[in-house]
Amino acid sequence: MQLVRLGEPGSERPFVRADDGTTYELGGLTADIDGGFLAADGVARAAAALAAGELPKAPETDLRVGAPIAQPGKVVCIGLNYRRHAEETNAPIPAEPVVFMKAPDVVVGPADDVLIPRKSVSTDWEVELGVVIGKTARYLESVDEALDHVAGYVVSNDVSEREFQLHRGGQWDKGKSCENFNPLGPALIPASEVPDPQDLGLRLWVNGEKKQDSTTKDMIFTVAEIIHYLSQVMVLRPGDLINTGTPEGVALGQPDPKPYLRDGDVVELEIDGLGRQRQTARQA
Amino acid sequence: MQLVRLGEPGSERPFVRADDGTTYELGGLTADIDGGFLAADGVARAAAALAAGELPKAPETDLRVGAPIAQPGKVVCIGLNYRRHAEETNAPIPAEPVVFMKAPDVVVGPADDVLIPRKSVSTDWEVELGVVIGKTARYLESVDEALDHVAGYVVSNDVSEREFQLHRGGQWDKGKSCENFNPLGPALIPASEVPDPQDLGLRLWVNGEKKQDSTTKDMIFTVAEIIHYLSQVMVLRPGDLINTGTPEGVALGQPDPKPYLRDGDVVELEIDGLGRQRQTARQA
Repeated sequence: MQLVRLGEPGSERPFVRADDGTTYELGGLTADIDGGFLAADGVARAAAALAAGELPKAPETDLRVGAPIAQPGKVVCIGLNYRRHAEETNAPIPAEPVVFMKAPDVVVGPADDVLIPRKSVSTDWEVELGVVIGKTARYLESVDEALDHVAGYVVSNDVSEREFQLHRGGQWDKGKSCENFNPLGPALIPASEVPDPQDLGLRLWVNGEKKQDSTTKDMIFTVAEIIHYLSQVMVLRPGDLINTGTPEGVALGQPDPKPYLRDGDVVELEIDGLGRQRQTARQA
Repeated sequence: MQLVRLGEPGSERPFVRADDGTTYELGGLTADIDGGFLAADGVARAAAALAAGELPKAPETDLRVGAPIAQPGKVVCIGLNYRRHAEETNAPIPAEPVVFMKAPDVVVGPADDVLIPRKSVSTDWEVELGVVIGKTARYLESVDEALDHVAGYVVSNDVSEREFQLHRGGQWDKGKSCENFNPLGPALIPASEVPDPQDLGLRLWVNGEKKQDSTTKDMIFTVAEIIHYLSQVMVLRPGDLINTGTPEGVALGQPDPKPYLRDGDVVELEIDGLGRQRQTARQA
């Protein structure tokens, strides 16, 4: 089962995709796939309603695919969390998770344009495993209880402007929150359907050429360790999104001239079992 | 005129305070003081309704004072934006604004407890001029048009855990988004009632002892320059909050042993014309 949101930006409605690909309306159960729905055991309720045949079949539509969750309360990102990516950027292996933030309003649908900011010279891609929180996590006592707080997993593109991030003074956030900088989706896959988040292949192509090809096995801090760690320095709430870091193969890590995104480039990314995104880069 | 939100956390309702101190219900005009209300010229509509005698007087109440705006879409912070604060922290004067983020869900009311995170050894205060966006700002062409995008101003305490921020690897954000780390209010003061945001005194006391005492004249980048700058690297939307930096006098800048907050400490802060906050620090 997958949870999806379809419709124009700001007007997306909730749906469920059954394993046979049929789409069902979820609007009778919830107005949106948001923190309130997830906190109220929404994923399990959707699955139960689907199994009981209680959800109406959606009409054949050609609706835009939105991000599969409503705008998160916060988007927390982990930097340098794959060994070979830390190496390619000449960064030391972090002793503790590197934490930064993206503005929640940059989350868009998986096929929406990636906008190259005006005056940008180094807009880069980052395929990442996105984790959506389902239950409030505050000072968790052990790593073992962390995954109980996950509602589901999602493909995330942590788009980054490297000059803004690294060479314009101060903190990375400056290059992480440009308009449309976080394509998300196509679907929220329930945690129960992802037996091991540390055994997922993830790949990214630009104009058909494979750029990133790794597995979440290469993560320095596991999803469970990240959630436990974050819960000591902030409260994670239902509907929050965690981007868990990108593997090697970003433009930043290539020899000069680095192949940063240009107007018209097509970016495709996928994670085993979570689906596939396809965006076109456009000058803002 | 001031805009305020009163009620228990998560259940605040909107009110207007007239210049004579009388409180009026704003619930007939809007369900909340949020981005939608501000974007729809809500501040001017509230002022017109107040002037026309259309708002019902609020009953005498003893309601908790909440943050004067609903949870922002994002909280953007400017670091090292006062000359003497940059000096006290031994940081160079920034050539461009230093930008970081706070999680929007750490915004609380002006009298809510500041929670000292577990294992924190260096929870610090920061009185700041908060700017609330009223109109979408995207690639503004000039600094001159920036202030047209401000709905109003507010007192903000950008609480910071310095060890998490500076000594635990990576980016500042780790020490900026702990629970309750952004007391805001008591009131949103309309931009029209703040003739010059670069001529406001701001002060902070801990247990009655004055720690910060400066003026927004000491800002390196003005409010207008900050909004113009940010609009080049992100879209500022109605209801967003910008914390514009703190002046000298934080605990981090004091000689050892630095007087970081301890359980029971009382923090008070104020900005000319914007009101006063008072919090108690409590161990989380």
